[in-house]
Amino acid sequence: MPIIQVNLLEGRSTEQKRKAAADMTKVICEDFDVKPEQVRIQFIDMSPANFSIGGTLTIDKK
Amino acid sequence: MPIIQVNLLEGRSTEQKRKAAADMTKVICEDFDVKPEQVRIQFIDMSPANFSIGGTLTIDKK
Amino acid sequence: MPIIQVNLLEGRSTEQKRKAAADMTKVICEDFDVKPEQVRIQFIDMSPANFSIGGTLTIDKK
Amino acid sequence: MPIIQVNLLEGRSTEQKRKAAADMTKVICEDFDVKPEQVRIQFIDMSPANFSIGGTLTIDKK
Amino acid sequence: MPIIQVNLLEGRSTEQKRKAAADMTKVICEDFDVKPEQVRIQFIDMSPANFSIGGTLTIDKK
Amino acid sequence: MPIIQVNLLEGRSTEQKRKAAADMTKVICEDFDVKPEQVRIQFIDMSPANFSIGGTLTIDKK
Repeated sequence: MPIIQVNLLEGRSTEQKRKAAADMTKVICEDFDVKPEQVRIQFIDMSPANFSIGGTLTIDKK
Repeated sequence: MPIIQVNLLEGRSTEQKRKAAADMTKVICEDFDVKPEQVRIQFIDMSPANFSIGGTLTIDKK
Repeated sequence: MPIIQVNLLEGRSTEQKRKAAADMTKVICEDFDVKPEQVRIQFIDMSPANFSIGGTLTIDKK
Repeated sequence: MPIIQVNLLEGRSTEQKRKAAADMTKVICEDFDVKPEQVRIQFIDMSPANFSIGGTLTIDKK
Repeated sequence: MPIIQVNLLEGRSTEQKRKAAADMTKVICEDFDVKPEQVRIQFIDMSPANFSIGGTLTIDKK
Repeated sequence: MPIIQVNLLEGRSTEQKRKAAADMTKVICEDFDVKPEQVRIQFIDMSPANFSIGGTLTIDKK
């Protein structure tokens, strides 16, 4: 039943997400003793105009 | 004050969401004894390239 | 695959959530054409000291 | 470490978000005694077809 | 309609949240041109055993 | 900047979360090419009275 949301800056390829989904699911199954089909992972792409650290949008970072 | 987030795979029509928003609000008002104007529902469309069950992206499911 | 989060003020009984889980799942299955076992609902209880409308915590509302 | 998610209807400009990110970070640092670089803010744009109050999608509001 | 979730380490007082709710609401109303009664803020307290930066739980930080 | 939320049924030990935080961070750094200090993970414990699959609360599952 683990439900995982991964918020990350847009621009990652489907290949990267494919590998991350497999790798994260493996790790979660081992560490929490659950079965793969119970693990749901949702990737949420963030635009650099929609994310801020320290009060500065990523789009404005140098 | 119920705030509901509904994450679902993209491709559902506005007509489906319109009906679901009405139906879910009705059910929530009845079961939790709140008024309709207190109920907020947010639909979040997930790309099949951004959702994984069992370590496999939906885009890769057969 | 719909994953639903329901944020609501604490104090609702398990019986209310039991009924709401069943009713919401039924409505979602009908409106989005999914099967019950695909529908996950998570209730998140909010303390009135942790929720604000209009800049006033619920704990301070009269 | 505060992580803030701001869900709001789409249509706000980057300039508005830029100012809000700075202003919210300032307020959070003062009120919770944290440093700016610890504050992360994520804006999530909602389509009016994806948000409902009182069972009515915003797209259908007059 | 802005809905804001503020995830922060537990231990903040109700007085701090009270002030933050008021201050954040004010800033959001000014920057996004909305009315106070439209702004909902949810504080989510995180246990230091439930939050990790850099792979280390906060409870294990020195 | 990846921010990850892991919703799972309560009852997992701090030792399990400690290992999962380390393992997930490692995997995310490798797959998305980010540095450990950029990765934040939040575990959210769900009561079995607050989670439903197929319209049935986990507390009612046999």
